[in-house]
Amino acid sequence: MSPDHLSTTFTALADPTRRAILARLAAGEASVTELAAPFAMSLPAISKHLKVLERAGLIARGREAQWRPCRLEAGPLKDAADWLEHYRRFWEQSFDRLEDYLGELKKKEKKHGRKK
Amino acid sequence: MSPDHLSTTFTALADPTRRAILARLAAGEASVTELAAPFAMSLPAISKHLKVLERAGLIARGREAQWRPCRLEAGPLKDAADWLEHYRRFWEQSFDRLEDYLGELKKKEKKHGRKK
Repeated sequence: MSPDHLSTTFTALADPTRRAILARLAAGEASVTELAAPFAMSLPAISKHLKVLERAGLIARGREAQWRPCRLEAGPLKDAADWLEHYRRFWEQSFDRLEDYLGELKKKEKKHGRKK
Repeated sequence: MSPDHLSTTFTALADPTRRAILARLAAGEASVTELAAPFAMSLPAISKHLKVLERAGLIARGREAQWRPCRLEAGPLKDAADWLEHYRRFWEQSFDRLEDYLGELKKKEKKHGRKK
């Protein structure tokens, strides 16, 4: 794997077809033909996507000459999730701010209700 | 945001300089000059990276004409983390398998130890 494997992972994930292939493989191993079935895409086009996923270490392919089933390899996904995890406090902060705001609105509503 | 905002997010994250810029902004707002300082890069090169981050909704820029500080916007990071979360069981499974294997090795070692 290249020293900047995170960039390779994110590049591989930056395509809806490749993410759909990973979603399909989450349900179990599949051949290239099976993977290609739901897409209006030629086999060579799908093969190209599979190569990107394979180079990123996101899938592995069986060694059988005829039927080379693809399977999901989750290691790089974990590394990507670990990287994103550092930023969790930022999205939770904005959620907390929204919650505080909603809490204040509720309080105001209650107060208003009592005055009636 | 485009319908495929996940691809836009992952593309923006697929670059070490852009990830370093986000890491810097996690410490607080910064101007373009401040952001450029740690990189051996021209201001226009940094500005190009900032535009990619801005289009992906990962940063926002102040409206002040002279000093337009950049700040982190974590929403798209949360969406990316949510997407990855669906695959957590796969990396945890492989970790469980490794743990099971280490457990077995330990048991064998103990057994072997007793026999001596």
